[in-house]
Amino acid sequence: MTILLYDLVGRDPARPYSPHCWKTAMSLAHKGLDFHSVPTTFIEVPNVEGGVSKTIPVIRDGETVVADSFQIALYLDEAYPDRPTLFGGEGGKAMARFIERWSQLTIHPYLGAAALMDIFAYQDNDNLAYFRESREARFGKKLEDVSAIRDAGLAAFRASLEPLRSMLGYQPFIGGKGPLFADYIVFGAFQWVRVTSPYPYLASDDPVAEWFERCLDLHGGLARKVTAEAAA
Amino acid sequence: MTILLYDLVGRDPARPYSPHCWKTAMSLAHKGLDFHSVPTTFIEVPNVEGGVSKTIPVIRDGETVVADSFQIALYLDEAYPDRPTLFGGEGGKAMARFIERWSQLTIHPYLGAAALMDIFAYQDNDNLAYFRESREARFGKKLEDVSAIRDAGLAAFRASLEPLRSMLGYQPFIGGKGPLFADYIVFGAFQWVRVTSPYPYLASDDPVAEWFERCLDLHGGLARKVTAEAAA
Repeated sequence: MTILLYDLVGRDPARPYSPHCWKTAMSLAHKGLDFHSVPTTFIEVPNVEGGVSKTIPVIRDGETVVADSFQIALYLDEAYPDRPTLFGGEGGKAMARFIERWSQLTIHPYLGAAALMDIFAYQDNDNLAYFRESREARFGKKLEDVSAIRDAGLAAFRASLEPLRSMLGYQPFIGGKGPLFADYIVFGAFQWVRVTSPYPYLASDDPVAEWFERCLDLHGGLARKVTAEAAA
Repeated sequence: MTILLYDLVGRDPARPYSPHCWKTAMSLAHKGLDFHSVPTTFIEVPNVEGGVSKTIPVIRDGETVVADSFQIALYLDEAYPDRPTLFGGEGGKAMARFIERWSQLTIHPYLGAAALMDIFAYQDNDNLAYFRESREARFGKKLEDVSAIRDAGLAAFRASLEPLRSMLGYQPFIGGKGPLFADYIVFGAFQWVRVTSPYPYLASDDPVAEWFERCLDLHGGLARKVTAEAAA
């Protein structure tokens, strides 16, 4: 049976962009499971599956509804143990949590601020006001002022990726020879800005950019099929 | 047969202090293997096992000699598969490399600089000159000037631990419910400064300090038996 993925979209329903929904799309593809993406904008999230979660991704797999990309990955490995693992054992399950926290605390704050105006511009008309109000309340300043850090923060952001960059000198994926959920955790953040923003967050000769390209090739190029945002 | 661990010491041969040797001591204890620590100072390292490595830890297990704490952990899991795992599967093996790179690039630069004068003072008389010359060449300045960053850098250092701190809200060890080699990787860095320096690198109510205390309790309190450096 096809799994439903409630997938965050903006003005283009064919180009989902949420970092967390991308973690789940890649997880489903990794497990080789058929899934159907249900385009969902911010203001539609409260109605997803009777309001089961304040955020998406949410999946429905038959009678089972699961929210949160990490919980979904755990569910998929437990429900489909005969398909390729997302964690590579109990140690990988535990350490993926460290990587999730590292990604959320190292990568997301800069990208979320730097790309904020692009993500705003990516909303459809019905979501523009919601996005501006909710984000300006969260940051305590105007969107335009938040994303003004983009250029000044770029060098420090690229430097903060050094643990990942250095690790890529040992192995091609965070998961080792092949990708695991830990790769999709970090991949989601860069796919978020690839789909919404033409800004060069990574230098093209950065090993991190080369790893990202390898991720775009995975699972029949699932993530590459969604085109990158072009410069205006 | 008892395994030999060539273990870095300073003026007190009973209080080994190397972050990397501690990773290996904890790994050997985790596997439940008998080992004998061979106290080794910096200037003795070139003679260890015929000069097999520029650095220690080095272990001898019967006819097998292995250098580098990560390689030793991999060796131990392969040679003793029936004893408790250090990685928890292939995923854990891969992700431990990310954590090793994070620790080396986030924790070590500050601690290595901030504690430099204490580590210098911890050398025996025969190693003082070697230590000063080699470190001043590496840093390109006097030891005293390197460690002058200690107070000014402390807040940023503590903030840089946020991914670990945040992860500890989910689970008691990097390895999950119990420790794995990834815990020993980070533990080693804090044990290094615990043994050589009385400076409060961690606030006592920091969840990272609480995790470190849990590590000191492991394996019969192996690491706690080596006393902390007292304030002069």
